[in-house]
Amino acid sequence: MEKNASIFRRYLLSEELTFLMEAHNGLSAKIAEATGFKALWASGLTISASLGVRDCNEISWTQVLEVLEYMSDSVSVPIMVDADTGYGNFNSVRRLVRKLCDRGISAVCIEDKIFPKTNSFIDRNQDLANIDEFCGKIKAGKDSQNYSDFTIVARTEALISGHGLKEALTRSEAYRKAGADAILIHSKMSNADEIFSFTREWANRLPLVIVPTKYYNVPTHLYRENKISMIIWANHSLRACITAMKQICKKIYDDESLLAVEKSVASLEEIFSLVNDHELQQAENKYLPQPV
Amino acid sequence: MEKNASIFRRYLLSEELTFLMEAHNGLSAKIAEATGFKALWASGLTISASLGVRDCNEISWTQVLEVLEYMSDSVSVPIMVDADTGYGNFNSVRRLVRKLCDRGISAVCIEDKIFPKTNSFIDRNQDLANIDEFCGKIKAGKDSQNYSDFTIVARTEALISGHGLKEALTRSEAYRKAGADAILIHSKMSNADEIFSFTREWANRLPLVIVPTKYYNVPTHLYRENKISMIIWANHSLRACITAMKQICKKIYDDESLLAVEKSVASLEEIFSLVNDHELQQAENKYLPQPV
Amino acid sequence: MEKNASIFRRYLLSEELTFLMEAHNGLSAKIAEATGFKALWASGLTISASLGVRDCNEISWTQVLEVLEYMSDSVSVPIMVDADTGYGNFNSVRRLVRKLCDRGISAVCIEDKIFPKTNSFIDRNQDLANIDEFCGKIKAGKDSQNYSDFTIVARTEALISGHGLKEALTRSEAYRKAGADAILIHSKMSNADEIFSFTREWANRLPLVIVPTKYYNVPTHLYRENKISMIIWANHSLRACITAMKQICKKIYDDESLLAVEKSVASLEEIFSLVNDHELQQAENKYLPQPV
Amino acid sequence: MEKNASIFRRYLLSEELTFLMEAHNGLSAKIAEATGFKALWASGLTISASLGVRDCNEISWTQVLEVLEYMSDSVSVPIMVDADTGYGNFNSVRRLVRKLCDRGISAVCIEDKIFPKTNSFIDRNQDLANIDEFCGKIKAGKDSQNYSDFTIVARTEALISGHGLKEALTRSEAYRKAGADAILIHSKMSNADEIFSFTREWANRLPLVIVPTKYYNVPTHLYRENKISMIIWANHSLRACITAMKQICKKIYDDESLLAVEKSVASLEEIFSLVNDHELQQAENKYLPQPV
Repeated sequence: MEKNASIFRRYLLSEELTFLMEAHNGLSAKIAEATGFKALWASGLTISASLGVRDCNEISWTQVLEVLEYMSDSVSVPIMVDADTGYGNFNSVRRLVRKLCDRGISAVCIEDKIFPKTNSFIDRNQDLANIDEFCGKIKAGKDSQNYSDFTIVARTEALISGHGLKEALTRSEAYRKAGADAILIHSKMSNADEIFSFTREWANRLPLVIVPTKYYNVPTHLYRENKISMIIWANHSLRACITAMKQICKKIYDDESLLAVEKSVASLEEIFSLVNDHELQQAENKYLPQPV
Repeated sequence: MEKNASIFRRYLLSEELTFLMEAHNGLSAKIAEATGFKALWASGLTISASLGVRDCNEISWTQVLEVLEYMSDSVSVPIMVDADTGYGNFNSVRRLVRKLCDRGISAVCIEDKIFPKTNSFIDRNQDLANIDEFCGKIKAGKDSQNYSDFTIVARTEALISGHGLKEALTRSEAYRKAGADAILIHSKMSNADEIFSFTREWANRLPLVIVPTKYYNVPTHLYRENKISMIIWANHSLRACITAMKQICKKIYDDESLLAVEKSVASLEEIFSLVNDHELQQAENKYLPQPV
Repeated sequence: MEKNASIFRRYLLSEELTFLMEAHNGLSAKIAEATGFKALWASGLTISASLGVRDCNEISWTQVLEVLEYMSDSVSVPIMVDADTGYGNFNSVRRLVRKLCDRGISAVCIEDKIFPKTNSFIDRNQDLANIDEFCGKIKAGKDSQNYSDFTIVARTEALISGHGLKEALTRSEAYRKAGADAILIHSKMSNADEIFSFTREWANRLPLVIVPTKYYNVPTHLYRENKISMIIWANHSLRACITAMKQICKKIYDDESLLAVEKSVASLEEIFSLVNDHELQQAENKYLPQPV
Repeated sequence: MEKNASIFRRYLLSEELTFLMEAHNGLSAKIAEATGFKALWASGLTISASLGVRDCNEISWTQVLEVLEYMSDSVSVPIMVDADTGYGNFNSVRRLVRKLCDRGISAVCIEDKIFPKTNSFIDRNQDLANIDEFCGKIKAGKDSQNYSDFTIVARTEALISGHGLKEALTRSEAYRKAGADAILIHSKMSNADEIFSFTREWANRLPLVIVPTKYYNVPTHLYRENKISMIIWANHSLRACITAMKQICKKIYDDESLLAVEKSVASLEEIFSLVNDHELQQAENKYLPQPV
């Protein structure tokens, strides 16, 4: 929706730091929104993993789109999508952006690697895309959005691939000139040194987005001091699910009984409430013929 | 796959009690299998809820099929599908059964209510299907399976809808004669009294399947003594996820930091391992041109 | 798109007779639009048949939606969708209407039969829906549209099912009161007598839509005189394709050669032109790095 | 199905010349089969065009798969799929081949260009893939097939891209060594000179497949003499449809009437017959409760 895209853009441009919570399906999106998060991150890694596949474009871009539609239908807050490398060339990005707008998505992040991609935290195939070609994707994407406040975030993997700060800055500046609305500067270090080196040199030319998965122990006030615009908590709902499902499966398997777990898991009523079953009951009263 | 269908049939017919663990996507299926469960239950309620929709056929049957394909691709153990009322009439069941066979599903359960259905634990619209019409669905389904060991379980909601033991027995016998491979006798009581009344009268004419969601506190040895064939733990992985996601979201939201949660959630390496990333690395060595 | 819905509504309410041409995929939609038709009919029968399935809801409603999205993406003119009985109950119609709006569809027609439906020209199972229940679907649909000019046409099968003029009028009036924007009065007679009996009694309470597939020989000026609002040419592009494909297949099969058919079929350039390949070439010049 | 794959393999290896007719949806597949064609070609160009999109991977590989499933469900004869470049890297090919086997497809053809591809008859971007990388795709595909007789045809675009006979031979030999089951040698010349130069040098090391779209005037006995194994009539059903739809749309539009076209198009009964509506009627008699 256009409205959500404008809200997202406002967050991006504001002085406030905004936090995006990972979601990978309609339910996780609902829970993140109910918690209070103002925007969501539809993670490529966790969407893939939840479906049982790897984070290397094993599912098609339209299969991703189907997941996104469930998520978009489930919440009112803006969603930014992790669209990997854009799933092909500039024309793939054009189609993607149009479809994301159709599906009510507010923002997309594309990264400067090669299709099919490799997850940033796996030590292989982190080759970077040709700068000009990637700039063509950004331009093509911006020219394809249905509403003016749709956001395209350019993610550089220059630090991930070991090309260093200078390359990261060169690329980010090229992406800015190509029309990107923000830069996502990614790092796999366990501290934020290279991130803050980048922010100093970047000097706020465009809003910055970060993903502190590996440098999780950096205090958040430092991000505020360094004028970061958005922080993505990138995969933690899914990681919490994995731990929870392993425990519950093991307990039920070992016990051959539900007795010990019943009180530790959400009730059925909680499921019904999360999917707003109450609204259906009201609608049945309104639209179904009533017994005489 | 034909092989899995045969394995499932063997479990159904054996003297042993078999436990089916709920799964709602590829990941939950993998975790249930890794825990040791010999077969899985693809739950209509939890698949719907995970996508963010209600358990009343809000998603189409082919959208369910897409979820099932991810699940089937993710595990080696047999899967039984909760197909609600069969999504329409006898012809819908014919198409469904063929597609389930194509997707490698081993068994399907259909229930004797009206499309679109209402969840059994919600107090409205629990009208039962016409017996003859439902028998037609069973026959049509059995005539459509691609391999002989595919299983169709007929689920009667006679007790759920308050029609009592006699109706449940009449229906189950009709479904048996129509060709059902097993009966799922469902109950929403908090004890197993009506279930055991049924088992006594039924006298093992066909294998029985139960879902002790509401009567979770009944000791499992009683099911063995009553010759139950299969128990479905119907929704507990998803319920564990809900609790876990609510907690993790709240903690991260309150802290504005990952620090406190990092150690409590599965590691990234665990995600990579669950989707077998190691195999991809080996394949890249095998199939990609190697640098000189 | 909202804009197209408004254009469609204007046609519906105008004094002019509007003709809707059948389309069943993106290509047939493009050709109908290029011919000059101002609006399209996405036919349930021809969409099904083109996919190779029967017109009795063998494909799911989301599979229909996928076809509609290709069509909507292919043309600029408004599309009215033949949505059979609405694919379930009032809640199915609510979801359908929302998704049709999302996909840029301008209007939907739902008919007062039972799901799964039977084609109107096949002599069996033409049972009519309960009036109150069908009115609930109309109300639910109207309450679910994303933009105010989306159109819901109520199609009565009262004449098709042999219930006669009085029933057709009673039903149409009930549907009008429930909020329908127009009535589609369907007939399988080889003349328009019962149609014109209806129009006289109806006296323009709401715009009327007809489908003269069986009474194709009635002169069009009679429809204008009887104040029909819209005529649907319901299946003729597909029927032309069938004839053409049978001929071309037979000729090539018999000849074991293309020589005799090459000049009689559209050129490759015509295909490229229909899908606007020229635009892609321009986009490549704009977005791809140019060789130095 | 495994059975169809074996039939297709037998055609490929036989001394007889086999003709594959283009199909782009379930209906065109049914008509080609009914005409007598022993195998079908699911064309990338015509599938794309029928949906209204361009032949440059604008739709995702799973959207192609959906079309293929309708086709496979519609006919009993083997289908060979035009899978462009394999939609990505070796891992994309692995997933594709597994899914094609699941969907009952007998053979796939992949070509040695870059993803996203350009149609061979359009004068731009005909860059060839790295030979080793393409061989990796072939190997990966062969290692992923579910049944031993599934066929992978390697298509070289060496002649299309102007690299000449020697390159075509070098590549074909590499693909043969990598495990390809046949070679498709493609040409856009208006005669078969370069094709026959190739066949002479190739000397039958593997079966050859050709696509005489541009050199349609070459007599078929020459292909037999040159030991071609299979000929693909690649796009003629769709091209016949375009011509037919343009004519019928224009006539109906100009006449504002169906009168002149009714006799020239297939009847409704022919549609019902093509989708085997008679079988449904029999099934209703068998599976629906009969009125007393």
